[in-house]
Amino acid sequence: MGSAKALSYCSCQNHCNVLLLRPFASSLSRFLSSTSALDSPPAPPSMAPVLKCEYAVRGEIVTLAQALQEELKSKPGSHPFDEILYCNIGNPQSLGQQPITFFREVLALCDHPSILDKSETQGLFSARDKIGLPIEMIDNYKDSHDSLSEWKPSADAIERAWQILDQIPGRATGAYSHSQGIKGLRDTIAAGIEARDGFPADPNDIFLTDGASPAVHMMMQLLIRSEKDGILCPIPQYPLYSASIALHGGTLVPYYLDEATGWGLEVSELKKQLADTKSKGITPRAVVVINPGNPTGQVLAEDNQRGIVEFCKQEGLILLADEVYQENVYVPEKKFHSFKKVARSMGYGEKDISIVSFQSVSKGYYGECGKRGGYMEVTGFGPEIREQIYKVASVNLCSNISGQILASLVMSPPKVGDESYESYYAEKDGILSSLMRRAKTLEDAFNNLEGVTCNKAEGAMYLFPCIRLPEKAIKAAEAAKTAPDNFYCRRLLNATGIVFVPGSGFGQIPGTWHFRCTILPQEDKIPAVVSRLTEFHKSFMEEFRD
Amino acid sequence: MGSAKALSYCSCQNHCNVLLLRPFASSLSRFLSSTSALDSPPAPPSMAPVLKCEYAVRGEIVTLAQALQEELKSKPGSHPFDEILYCNIGNPQSLGQQPITFFREVLALCDHPSILDKSETQGLFSARDKIGLPIEMIDNYKDSHDSLSEWKPSADAIERAWQILDQIPGRATGAYSHSQGIKGLRDTIAAGIEARDGFPADPNDIFLTDGASPAVHMMMQLLIRSEKDGILCPIPQYPLYSASIALHGGTLVPYYLDEATGWGLEVSELKKQLADTKSKGITPRAVVVINPGNPTGQVLAEDNQRGIVEFCKQEGLILLADEVYQENVYVPEKKFHSFKKVARSMGYGEKDISIVSFQSVSKGYYGECGKRGGYMEVTGFGPEIREQIYKVASVNLCSNISGQILASLVMSPPKVGDESYESYYAEKDGILSSLMRRAKTLEDAFNNLEGVTCNKAEGAMYLFPCIRLPEKAIKAAEAAKTAPDNFYCRRLLNATGIVFVPGSGFGQIPGTWHFRCTILPQEDKIPAVVSRLTEFHKSFMEEFRD
Repeated sequence: MGSAKALSYCSCQNHCNVLLLRPFASSLSRFLSSTSALDSPPAPPSMAPVLKCEYAVRGEIVTLAQALQEELKSKPGSHPFDEILYCNIGNPQSLGQQPITFFREVLALCDHPSILDKSETQGLFSARDKIGLPIEMIDNYKDSHDSLSEWKPSADAIERAWQILDQIPGRATGAYSHSQGIKGLRDTIAAGIEARDGFPADPNDIFLTDGASPAVHMMMQLLIRSEKDGILCPIPQYPLYSASIALHGGTLVPYYLDEATGWGLEVSELKKQLADTKSKGITPRAVVVINPGNPTGQVLAEDNQRGIVEFCKQEGLILLADEVYQENVYVPEKKFHSFKKVARSMGYGEKDISIVSFQSVSKGYYGECGKRGGYMEVTGFGPEIREQIYKVASVNLCSNISGQILASLVMSPPKVGDESYESYYAEKDGILSSLMRRAKTLEDAFNNLEGVTCNKAEGAMYLFPCIRLPEKAIKAAEAAKTAPDNFYCRRLLNATGIVFVPGSGFGQIPGTWHFRCTILPQEDKIPAVVSRLTEFHKSFMEEFRD
Repeated sequence: MGSAKALSYCSCQNHCNVLLLRPFASSLSRFLSSTSALDSPPAPPSMAPVLKCEYAVRGEIVTLAQALQEELKSKPGSHPFDEILYCNIGNPQSLGQQPITFFREVLALCDHPSILDKSETQGLFSARDKIGLPIEMIDNYKDSHDSLSEWKPSADAIERAWQILDQIPGRATGAYSHSQGIKGLRDTIAAGIEARDGFPADPNDIFLTDGASPAVHMMMQLLIRSEKDGILCPIPQYPLYSASIALHGGTLVPYYLDEATGWGLEVSELKKQLADTKSKGITPRAVVVINPGNPTGQVLAEDNQRGIVEFCKQEGLILLADEVYQENVYVPEKKFHSFKKVARSMGYGEKDISIVSFQSVSKGYYGECGKRGGYMEVTGFGPEIREQIYKVASVNLCSNISGQILASLVMSPPKVGDESYESYYAEKDGILSSLMRRAKTLEDAFNNLEGVTCNKAEGAMYLFPCIRLPEKAIKAAEAAKTAPDNFYCRRLLNATGIVFVPGSGFGQIPGTWHFRCTILPQEDKIPAVVSRLTEFHKSFMEEFRD
């Protein structure tokens, strides 16, 4: 059942192979054994199958978009648009968002061995004057440079780099670290969580990972013992969860977010699905909550969070809190509150509830997807189970050190008074306020389209508008052997160069149609997105009006 | 059976949780369901079990070592030694090996956003003069620095950084890349493989990964359909393989390396084990070969490799070639030859044999374990199966970009005439020739010990000497409820502070005892290792002589 569920959401983020690998393995084994490497030497051998499987975020539509882009290059003017406008994936720097200077200064300083050399012989102060001019560079490069001089990043970047290097045994940024992550960096992250929540955090509860995805896989591996174990997931959802649950042979238990109340999470819906699950002999293990939401973009109200915490405590369910968009909140009336903070403010401690909070360096205002940094904070599990998590974390020895450093930086950015603070704040505010404007502009544009309704863009990086398609369009989609939302997105792309992801990639109430649009195109591109979309939608509705 | 096998090698690298998770899941499910989160709210919930499970490389012995280290700090003179000498793990930079300057210069330049800013407005040449002095640094830091000046890394490091940035769409080092890795970097790696082998390499066959381990997991996930699928693995072996096979529910088929012939890999042994496997109804899928060997340190002779290639071709088996130590060869009479090169030189092409070659930035002379970079080159699979591998590769979107860049650098280091070449070569040669001397010194030292024989240290980073323990010692180990090799290593540690890994962590012929010793302690520490070991061993043999 979990597999079936999972499969029905299998069209996004390339996770689908995972969805299909396991469910199909048994049913296909007969076919496979008859075509195994042994029976049909030599190559190519048969593999565990990854069959008919659509991508969405990087899928059919995106492949088509890339083909069109090539055609535009080779034959300018061959299409009614001059560029592809990618609104399909939460990958900010791929669309021109610049990294935060302070973070990259620290990473560069930590990477550069000259600092390590200096550190052997000199204290921070003198090193500041000599920074970037290692002995061996004088020796090796004297001849080739007439004037030798220094690189001067901000003083606090240098100081931070030193602090970080001092936290790494032997200052060895090129060494495997503790499998849980470098202790000093976990101290910094724990302090950042305390400052954010106003409640204590324990460095031993922090597990640094290559982005948030491996952390999610780790927890599923530990939680799921058989397909009789169920994980409650929101629908619509970020398909990593359906993928990971299928990968580890568990059962996805869907609960539906209420579009009518701004993608609200109703505890009554959780209770209904829980009862239904138990009646089927499935043991519910955990509840996944994505806040701010992906693909839905809502930010949960604090009292709503309290209800969810109370529900998990009563039912003894683990709360898996995807909080990677914690910095992405765009409306004054909403604030991000971590589920751990909410639980603690309700008086629930370690012994009362188990919460896992996932964080990533890929989102927020930093958007450092390529660095693959992130962490999970696991509370309420006790030492034995933390020990088990540690063992799972150790499978690949450790996460990459630059990602670990970056995770510590996003949880402890420059503070008022630091040399970098002003420029750091200007960069951060510039990105977030621009995202806020882009979200609002797109939200309004969608709501101005005939038959389209779009909830408020409260947070994250996405809008998930609902489109009521005319019967004629649905019939045309059937004739084209594709889903109506996919049909719409393909037509949109061919007419305008705009890339959306069909709602079926995330799951939606049967009979309803949606698409996901990121708010990430640079601000000067947004007017083009709006005008092209509006014009296309008009003609589409004209063409298919019943 | 696979599980059983796997379990018997389950005492190394913290992979054991993986080994145990699956095999135990079923047998423990009854126990677990009775203690599920639901039946015993609230926390802590039960987890998929990771039971009694020893570590070796980072295990019991290492934990003890860390405890002793703390005691030495708090109570100097509390032990008969003043420092712990770690010979347990292949983590060079943790023991003081310095990174290669050129590689880190390029990484730092790619991380630093000022380069990206410049690139918008200036070509390479002018940027070279202005490098490291971004506009915003002038604006932000004018006040805080009296003199503004420049950082000047080597010209070829700057040029390489530019080449790399130009290969990254939008120069966005902070963006998710193609899930297979950045195309331009794969081009560079393919060119490096061609230069190494003298045979063509296809960038589309390269999959960049966070170190070699994820690549191994990926292939096992694809190859193993059920426990009826067998993977031939050397014994002794690097436990990643037993771990990964168990993780994916397959069967490990052991073949024994012949210690008497310098850990030779006899094709007759492969044939014997293959026949035995088939008779048990297991379908052999692939053969794992580690060359140079871990933990055994041998380098395969080319004719031996030819025999293995011929065997795989005849039997239609996939050759999984762990070639991460390809730069670590210490004897003039042996050279590293990739299995693909050997196959091609035999006239076998894409259609004749399937080979996967694993490479990592963690080993070689670079030893950049913390960067988590690596790749696999998959040949002889055909487009459909490469498509499947791509989908599996996409599960976590992409590997970290710094690791990807580093993987391209180790496959295309500075060349004669480049500004960095001399210093690069000096650093590389310094590390490799020192490793060669350390290996020889330790090899001789082991062979001078009563009852110890050690094969030639031909390559990799390890020695795996055999120790014939007196009956008395074996009885004493039994009394201490531990394996004899573990007993010896623990005594060694307590007496000398030297950390070895018991052979049982890698697998050994029943009744024989070994330990693995890395050659990585810095050269000035080696004499201490030798003298302390020699002294300890004498007294140990005195104490237990039959």
